Amino acid sequence: MEQGKSLTEVLGIVASEMQAHLGHGRVADYIPALAKIDPRQFGIVAASCDGQVVAAGDADMAFSVQSISKVFMLTMALEKLGGALWRRVGKEPSGSPFNSIVQLENERGIPRNPLINAGALVVTDALLARGDPAALIDGFVEFMRDRANDESVSIDSEVARSEGETGFRNASLANFLKAFGNIHSDVNDVLRVYFHQCALRLNCRQLARAGLYLAHCGVDPVSHAKVTTAQRARRINALMMTCGHYDASGDFAFRVGLPGKSGVGGGILAIAPGRASIAVWSPGLNEWGNSHVGVLALERLASLTGWSVF
Amino acid sequence: MEQGKSLTEVLGIVASEMQAHLGHGRVADYIPALAKIDPRQFGIVAASCDGQVVAAGDADMAFSVQSISKVFMLTMALEKLGGALWRRVGKEPSGSPFNSIVQLENERGIPRNPLINAGALVVTDALLARGDPAALIDGFVEFMRDRANDESVSIDSEVARSEGETGFRNASLANFLKAFGNIHSDVNDVLRVYFHQCALRLNCRQLARAGLYLAHCGVDPVSHAKVTTAQRARRINALMMTCGHYDASGDFAFRVGLPGKSGVGGGILAIAPGRASIAVWSPGLNEWGNSHVGVLALERLASLTGWSVF
Amino acid sequence: MEQGKSLTEVLGIVASEMQAHLGHGRVADYIPALAKIDPRQFGIVAASCDGQVVAAGDADMAFSVQSISKVFMLTMALEKLGGALWRRVGKEPSGSPFNSIVQLENERGIPRNPLINAGALVVTDALLARGDPAALIDGFVEFMRDRANDESVSIDSEVARSEGETGFRNASLANFLKAFGNIHSDVNDVLRVYFHQCALRLNCRQLARAGLYLAHCGVDPVSHAKVTTAQRARRINALMMTCGHYDASGDFAFRVGLPGKSGVGGGILAIAPGRASIAVWSPGLNEWGNSHVGVLALERLASLTGWSVF
Amino acid sequence: MEQGKSLTEVLGIVASEMQAHLGHGRVADYIPALAKIDPRQFGIVAASCDGQVVAAGDADMAFSVQSISKVFMLTMALEKLGGALWRRVGKEPSGSPFNSIVQLENERGIPRNPLINAGALVVTDALLARGDPAALIDGFVEFMRDRANDESVSIDSEVARSEGETGFRNASLANFLKAFGNIHSDVNDVLRVYFHQCALRLNCRQLARAGLYLAHCGVDPVSHAKVTTAQRARRINALMMTCGHYDASGDFAFRVGLPGKSGVGGGILAIAPGRASIAVWSPGLNEWGNSHVGVLALERLASLTGWSVF
Repeated sequence: MEQGKSLTEVLGIVASEMQAHLGHGRVADYIPALAKIDPRQFGIVAASCDGQVVAAGDADMAFSVQSISKVFMLTMALEKLGGALWRRVGKEPSGSPFNSIVQLENERGIPRNPLINAGALVVTDALLARGDPAALIDGFVEFMRDRANDESVSIDSEVARSEGETGFRNASLANFLKAFGNIHSDVNDVLRVYFHQCALRLNCRQLARAGLYLAHCGVDPVSHAKVTTAQRARRINALMMTCGHYDASGDFAFRVGLPGKSGVGGGILAIAPGRASIAVWSPGLNEWGNSHVGVLALERLASLTGWSVF
Repeated sequence: MEQGKSLTEVLGIVASEMQAHLGHGRVADYIPALAKIDPRQFGIVAASCDGQVVAAGDADMAFSVQSISKVFMLTMALEKLGGALWRRVGKEPSGSPFNSIVQLENERGIPRNPLINAGALVVTDALLARGDPAALIDGFVEFMRDRANDESVSIDSEVARSEGETGFRNASLANFLKAFGNIHSDVNDVLRVYFHQCALRLNCRQLARAGLYLAHCGVDPVSHAKVTTAQRARRINALMMTCGHYDASGDFAFRVGLPGKSGVGGGILAIAPGRASIAVWSPGLNEWGNSHVGVLALERLASLTGWSVF
Repeated sequence: MEQGKSLTEVLGIVASEMQAHLGHGRVADYIPALAKIDPRQFGIVAASCDGQVVAAGDADMAFSVQSISKVFMLTMALEKLGGALWRRVGKEPSGSPFNSIVQLENERGIPRNPLINAGALVVTDALLARGDPAALIDGFVEFMRDRANDESVSIDSEVARSEGETGFRNASLANFLKAFGNIHSDVNDVLRVYFHQCALRLNCRQLARAGLYLAHCGVDPVSHAKVTTAQRARRINALMMTCGHYDASGDFAFRVGLPGKSGVGGGILAIAPGRASIAVWSPGLNEWGNSHVGVLALERLASLTGWSVF
Repeated sequence: MEQGKSLTEVLGIVASEMQAHLGHGRVADYIPALAKIDPRQFGIVAASCDGQVVAAGDADMAFSVQSISKVFMLTMALEKLGGALWRRVGKEPSGSPFNSIVQLENERGIPRNPLINAGALVVTDALLARGDPAALIDGFVEFMRDRANDESVSIDSEVARSEGETGFRNASLANFLKAFGNIHSDVNDVLRVYFHQCALRLNCRQLARAGLYLAHCGVDPVSHAKVTTAQRARRINALMMTCGHYDASGDFAFRVGLPGKSGVGGGILAIAPGRASIAVWSPGLNEWGNSHVGVLALERLASLTGWSVF
């Protein structure tokens, strides 16, 4: 820690510095239910492997996790299917925006990685396995309540419905994958689960807590729950590093130096392996669809803590 | 270190296990001077930040560094130009093969990152700055002798000439960049330097030593030379992690978990920040143009040492 | 006509020569209801502007017109909307397979031309105009009965249903267009009409008769019905020439020299302006999805008649 | 001819109407020697198969033919190599700008057609056949003098040099083709010929005369010289129709309905098969690199004469 600052001091500095940047960026407006959110909000929480939880700003305001859900669904899918999942989805950065369809056509329906929309749809389909969408949605909420250690965690059904009504790009991707045989369940079932997982609401406190197993070799250091293997946790972190911020993943690695996953709700989950799980939230997005202030805050945090993995 | 094994023991295990894999992969044949090399060779050296150097296999056999030179030229360019370099080259994984031209057309002549060929040509042009190609080649050799702490380091002029005679793809890229105004010097001058930097010969011992500043915040821990700033060293590592293995960069991060840069001569430089610089060499390449056995060896090394950054 | 041969003689020669080629090519298998058709069939009919109708081979076997329907829907849409249609769809060859989605992403949801699937979906949506799908389907059948001068013309509902069940690629395209705002009606309504128009059944006699207005400045020379203006007829022919055979359109122009439109049912409609409308059918497709023997037959017909426009 | 107008009257009307449009469009500025031309010029000449030559406007002003040379080099190459040429270049519209390199990468160095730059470089290489560039340049000038029936036809060496100094995009394409083995001669030799053929100067009178064989089954109707076969003439016309105006070829076919080839010098050669060869020139270019007023003039001419092939 720079100049012997405590984690509490660091988060205070970050939260204070970020005030000047609030209001920059645009709130995601393609999901009507998200478009009404005040962009001038900011929260940050670091949950460390030794059980400490430090918060600053709007740490208790719940937001829509959106694409951050992909990390947790991926964890569930790897536990269920193991390495067989990688026959259906790749591990490479896509070099394209989050909802691109071009690469899919060239690569015959195998999405580049599980953290872009196409790949996440395949992960959801793999978990669904022609089963019951409602049961999978329930299972996901259950998993997230365990991770966040908070039974109040739930899905915002208005957001889920709102996504369903306007999610033509995702419907296009899912049908495209189905045309290549890489969606096995009914397209509408897969989309239903996907729209619900994205609509999960968490606050920074819950999200930081939920990601802690990724900073601690797959085991929740507080509850001691064995969520996944050490190797899988490392690999999920590797994917977050190379693919977690769409076509700004390289920039995030360059500036922050931590594995991270962003969502268009304005949240970012970042992992400092062996140290902490960090959740940050600010709804204004930059041109790549990542939280403008969230990335800045993590850059400062990494700089002040020296937590960059590089 | 797993089960308390020493670094010497770990490298011995890795070198021994790799014997079974030698002969797989294909030697790069598009550069005639490289096509004659026996693929059944393997060397590995780890130089640690505390000054220890451990070797196994063909650690003293010199090979052509090829694209690994991009890391060192990038270091030189950042020292010379600072952040201004990033106006001419990006920081994102390309999602394409090493010599792709497609992305350049869509993105108006700004290469995705400095570790693909197009980006490296821009870096070379930035260092050349309409100056003398011979002087830049000399300056690069000088820099590498300092890094490797070995005055015998030199360029294989036969390989440099061989590349010049067959490097139509690189000539195409350089002319393309020139058409977009992102090459300022004469195209032939830039190509001449580029073909020479690629033709530098190093053995694993020299390469591991040369990369040590990247594992130690930009400062050579042995000579105490300040090669670059801590921030730049971290950022170069970040680029190696997200972009160092072309369109298999995600797979390398997933399997090895260390920043690395490969060359078609069969070498790979990997960095374990704060710990060591590792050079591995085996000439047989996999389908992405990276050393087949080199990647396997680093995967085992990372597993046995626990050096993955994730 | 070469060596003073009559049209009857020419079609006899063509039909006879084609026997040797039957069985080449593959029947479209992605629509189950089409996959069962015997590929060793061939029919050809030329309807000339002076009212003559000449037939050879299986001229009375009905087949699924599939993409040939795009020509007639385009005619209807131009009559309804005029030049305003061209704000929603282009006039350029796509250089891509019939169902490509790549170009759509780059060009923000404006399909290259109305004869590829994406463009045809926009044409269908333009005709639907948030109206009643069943009424549009009826209107199309009505239009085709008038064109073919045959009240028995109808849609094969089994094929329409079969397309709906497997048309994930078209569903993907339609959702993609909707995401860009270039589908105004409900996606499922548009797809329903599209799958029905493709499932229209015609034999060569009916199809040649139906296209006659395109060979005669927009006016049916037999019934004197003014189907469209002379300029629009010419322009539809131009689009058939440059875009009528997907990414083999250039080859068709090169070999045949007539505007034409193919369908995966194995039919092709070709127009010899001022002279005749020609329908040919043989179910085996070449690698570009056009009737293998159909193209050969038209090449011979153009050669024997000298009807190439070039 | 509309309302019994003579060809002289038609050209008079067209030339008169075009006055209002002069000055629109931009003169090609990437070749310095072309950038100084006054865009407010316009010439048109129709040479009919019966020997008539009708002119209007600046019919005797010489201009740089640029890409129109591709049509004549293609004719020469087909005479020399026959159908073997098509193993090295395709016949399909590219769907891309004239100097695109993307498609080349996907299709392994086989250019889409001989009328885009990449394809024309292959045609030039095929004619060069490792021979003497100066001899090929002389042979081309000779061929054009014969076609134009004018010994004064020559190459503007300042323009040729100017293209060589700034033709980085073409140098990139040629090196790219060489990397795929689809250029056999020295890259610089091929480029030298290409830059010279583009720098040929013709006025509308000469150009219309030169293209006459394409309107008359391959035979010059005045000199009776057999330039190519009837089939090849038709096929060249077909390529001009589908590929002659880069990514505005479809629009040209739609609006004009004649095979045509444009050049960035502002010239267009259009063929009315069996009727006439038309040359038009006006230096201001539209956004696709075709003469803005030239296309308008041909659209009016086709409308007034009824010469559209559709």
